[in-house]
Amino acid sequence: MNQTEWAMLEKRVTGWIKEAAARLRASLTNPLEISEKSAHNDLVTNMDRSIEHFLVGKIKDHYPEHRIISEEGYGDEVTDTNGILWLLDPIDGTLNYVMQKRFFAISIGIYENGEGRAAFIYDVMGDELFHCLSGKGAYKNNAKLEPLTKIHIDDALIDLSPTWLKPNRRIDEDVFTEIIKRCSGTRAYGAASLELAYVAAGLLDAYFTMRLSPWDYGAGLILLSEVGGCHSRADGVPINILSKTSVIAARPGLYEDLIQHIKEQVASGKRLNEPQ
Amino acid sequence: MNQTEWAMLEKRVTGWIKEAAARLRASLTNPLEISEKSAHNDLVTNMDRSIEHFLVGKIKDHYPEHRIISEEGYGDEVTDTNGILWLLDPIDGTLNYVMQKRFFAISIGIYENGEGRAAFIYDVMGDELFHCLSGKGAYKNNAKLEPLTKIHIDDALIDLSPTWLKPNRRIDEDVFTEIIKRCSGTRAYGAASLELAYVAAGLLDAYFTMRLSPWDYGAGLILLSEVGGCHSRADGVPINILSKTSVIAARPGLYEDLIQHIKEQVASGKRLNEPQ
Repeated sequence: MNQTEWAMLEKRVTGWIKEAAARLRASLTNPLEISEKSAHNDLVTNMDRSIEHFLVGKIKDHYPEHRIISEEGYGDEVTDTNGILWLLDPIDGTLNYVMQKRFFAISIGIYENGEGRAAFIYDVMGDELFHCLSGKGAYKNNAKLEPLTKIHIDDALIDLSPTWLKPNRRIDEDVFTEIIKRCSGTRAYGAASLELAYVAAGLLDAYFTMRLSPWDYGAGLILLSEVGGCHSRADGVPINILSKTSVIAARPGLYEDLIQHIKEQVASGKRLNEPQ
Repeated sequence: MNQTEWAMLEKRVTGWIKEAAARLRASLTNPLEISEKSAHNDLVTNMDRSIEHFLVGKIKDHYPEHRIISEEGYGDEVTDTNGILWLLDPIDGTLNYVMQKRFFAISIGIYENGEGRAAFIYDVMGDELFHCLSGKGAYKNNAKLEPLTKIHIDDALIDLSPTWLKPNRRIDEDVFTEIIKRCSGTRAYGAASLELAYVAAGLLDAYFTMRLSPWDYGAGLILLSEVGGCHSRADGVPINILSKTSVIAARPGLYEDLIQHIKEQVASGKRLNEPQ
């Protein structure tokens, strides 16, 4: 697509997101139909499905040749990154949506032949849209985000779940122990797309998790790259946007220090397993 | 004070908080003067001092016989709970204030002869006031908060810092390991007064920390009690509002389960040390 078409897409997607968000806000005054998908902390609601159906419909109407990877199954079976690919999460942070009625987001990342081109992460209740067209600058609503500067671990605010600090299948519980002790503080908001957007916006200095799906991180990685942030799998390998993966995302400098630390821990025998 | 006087106080304090909040919002457009108090994660700013000075001045003007315990030293030396006592934090979540410019609060709890009487916790950037006069119901802005219902650990969203899950001076790192594994999810926002308000408002099911000061928890405990929530030290002992203390705050049912779990862990030899 040419620049004019990308600008048109930006305008369209923003409109669709605002319309979907209005439905989500309205839904919070009605009782939810909640079912358990694979575990008690992996809730799926009628609204996840309804919003995804709405957004996939809009994308297919306007961009029938594009392909979509989405959480609830209205997208396509995708096994390569050719052409234009949308990574879509209708409600990122479903547990927050259900339990808190806040701190959840609509996340849309768009890639062309594997390269990030556009990202939209909308905090529905906070009415805060983080978005970018690659190369055109990233924005928090109308405010342009500053390029990320370097920072030392001791001054860092790091977002990660206690899950990765206790016995689990993916990572030795002690890999991050020294980091937790040294860093300035830790946070956990429970919505990966927002947490990645917060790193891009300088509200967090790093985000770490051992398990995300393409729709969770698709938009966040593009937004982060746009402001000079760094990201990869926990072992430093570039993320394959078709895969479930670990994600480490951080300011420059801090990113290298964290990867170096993890590599040293792994070299000393500590376990690190990518999700299958 | 009689009911009319408490109602007058409610109106006054709300006004002072809104005025202080306007100053705080304005301050975020100016460079901050930040000094390190006792550690790199215990920042104090010129605004902490300025806002406390403002609020203490208002309290002393209108209630000269009342006493104040506050973070930055403009309050009184207090060694008993006789009469009316204000527990005041001008900026709870200073690290958030400095680094995120959001997720911080003004917290004011008022006790009469040791009994909670009024609480005000104001999320400055979120423009969300959690408050109550004891016995009159608790509110999030104009919405009355529902009484808290019972919940099981498996369905609980628990707020705690990874600090307490790794080697530290206060609590054996394994006391909460099983809780982390069983619960529905964990969160960490980095502002104790807001985290306690979130438990009161049902946005979180429990909050746990091994170290808080009276100005951090003073308002939150009153708010929580007003909606039927439970709180104590980690070992189940009632909190002495003049002391630095551990705090566990939760919905009924869940609170008893958490205390039971901690007591069993301690009985099996695990360490639990109250702050001095």
